[in-house]
Amino acid sequence: MSAIGVIATLTVAEGKNSEFEAVFAELAAAVRANEPGNEFYSLTRSKTDAQIYKVLERYVDQAALDTHGKTEYFKAAGLKLAPCLAAAPVIEYLDAF
Amino acid sequence: MSAIGVIATLTVAEGKNSEFEAVFAELAAAVRANEPGNEFYSLTRSKTDAQIYKVLERYVDQAALDTHGKTEYFKAAGLKLAPCLAAAPVIEYLDAF
Repeated sequence: MSAIGVIATLTVAEGKNSEFEAVFAELAAAVRANEPGNEFYSLTRSKTDAQIYKVLERYVDQAALDTHGKTEYFKAAGLKLAPCLAAAPVIEYLDAF
Repeated sequence: MSAIGVIATLTVAEGKNSEFEAVFAELAAAVRANEPGNEFYSLTRSKTDAQIYKVLERYVDQAALDTHGKTEYFKAAGLKLAPCLAAAPVIEYLDAF
C-alpha cells in the first residue's frame, strides 16, 4: 500500500475561530496519540484570510486513513466542528511518496 | 516565533516525472537529515493530474524556513528541478498551530 497525503480546507464562520481551534487542538492531540499510521496532522491558517484553515495530513496507507475516519474522537469532533464551519469541508487526497 | 506551514505546488513537464522525483527524493532526504527546524517535508502528487505535485512542509519558525532556503543542497536541487517544471512554482505560506 502507498502513503496518502491530505489537504483539508475548512472555512470557519466569523466569530467561531477560537471554538474551532480549541476543538481541533483536542482532535489533533488524539490523532497523534492514537494513530501510529498517521505521520502528521497539522493545522494551518491562511495568512490572507483568517477564516480559511488547511489541515496538512499524511497516512502510511489507505487502511490508516480509513482507521482515522472511523475513530470515536474523529466522529465526536466532527459534530462539534460542524457548527463552526461556514462551508462544506473540501478534502483533497494525494498520492504521497 | 510561530510555526509555519507551506504548500508548494509544482507543475512538472510531461516526460520529466521520473527525473523530478529522483532529484526531489535526494533533496527531501537532505532536508530531513540536516534541518532540525523542519518538521515534515512530504512530496505528494495529485490523483487527478499526474503532472501536479504538492510539497507539504512545516517549520518551527521563520528562521527555520529561512535556513531551509539558504542551504547549498536546496539551491543545487533548484537548479536541477527547474528544467523539469512546466510552470513557475506556486508557494503558499500558512500560519501553523
